[in-house]
Amino acid sequence: MSEERLLRQIAFIAEIDRLKQVYRQTYLMDTSRKENSAEHSWHFALLAMVLAEYSDTQIDIFKVVRMALIHDIVEIDAGDVLIYDRESVDNHHEREQLAADRLFSILPADQEAEFRSLWEEFEARESAEARFAAALDRLQPILHNYYTQGKSWQEHGVTVDKVIQINSRIDEGSETLWAFARNLIEDAVSKGYLSKEAGKSEI
Amino acid sequence: MSEERLLRQIAFIAEIDRLKQVYRQTYLMDTSRKENSAEHSWHFALLAMVLAEYSDTQIDIFKVVRMALIHDIVEIDAGDVLIYDRESVDNHHEREQLAADRLFSILPADQEAEFRSLWEEFEARESAEARFAAALDRLQPILHNYYTQGKSWQEHGVTVDKVIQINSRIDEGSETLWAFARNLIEDAVSKGYLSKEAGKSEI
Repeated sequence: MSEERLLRQIAFIAEIDRLKQVYRQTYLMDTSRKENSAEHSWHFALLAMVLAEYSDTQIDIFKVVRMALIHDIVEIDAGDVLIYDRESVDNHHEREQLAADRLFSILPADQEAEFRSLWEEFEARESAEARFAAALDRLQPILHNYYTQGKSWQEHGVTVDKVIQINSRIDEGSETLWAFARNLIEDAVSKGYLSKEAGKSEI
Repeated sequence: MSEERLLRQIAFIAEIDRLKQVYRQTYLMDTSRKENSAEHSWHFALLAMVLAEYSDTQIDIFKVVRMALIHDIVEIDAGDVLIYDRESVDNHHEREQLAADRLFSILPADQEAEFRSLWEEFEARESAEARFAAALDRLQPILHNYYTQGKSWQEHGVTVDKVIQINSRIDEGSETLWAFARNLIEDAVSKGYLSKEAGKSEI
């Protein structure tokens, strides 16, 4: 082995430890605290392992798992953004590109290219794997909201029409999971977890 | 699809959220708090992706990644145990078997069998994938200890001979990574992060 190569790999492994300190708007299912992006990525990868059979098309599930594991690494520099906050999402793209430049370049060049390409494929949402990964990345917070009686939805004044609009991309990866999510969303409305009217803290 | 099947899969996904609340003895690299087992599992899976080339034998890296993702799920019921605490480690096995019975049986039978078998293969440390996974699972806390100037080692009065004894299994999966870890351990001793003498809180 080249010692320099291993040292770069170890430096990357140490650097990404910081993802454990990037907090999302989603609460843990016991509502005790918000979720961080490292543990979210783990959960997302597990969703891929467990729900692979619901992809509408034939996929390389290891690619989906790898996408899940690396998709949020750029947040170490760029931070997490509420998906219902449209303006922040738009400004966010440039920050994420710069983050990807810095973070993936810690790796040896061949692995930098591999990770960058995987992340860009996920972001572009064009391949079957990226569409299925995007579906799971959206399904997971719906589950968290449902199990916490809509805690994060309510804090941000998010209403049912927005939840459906933002999450309808689940349908691009899995018809079955979108049908399931729609049922969950309807049930959340009927249980009072999710409002039909815009709340005062609406974005 | 069978609705019951999907509901079992979703119930499992919701149940494993609790791994985010199981805390380890290892500190985050910025020392701000202890690490939980969900984010550790994410980090471990990334180590597999980045360091795959150092396995001594040809391996199925997706299997190693899947092992990383599920290896600690049993801790939801069984808790985490300090690897330097020999007695607890021994009592721990029965609790882990019961935890595996309960947790994996939430899944549909075919996936229960798949996850159980993967976890047992990891625990047995006989296959090439399990040996490499075990090496990474030991390397990760050494990195955390090194980057935090030995914080967890010192809190538990762990000395260099124990660190070498417990972690020498890295050598069963990767000669290169064990050589690297030995250098790191020696450096930790020379920098005063790790003691040669038993401390007063020694286990």
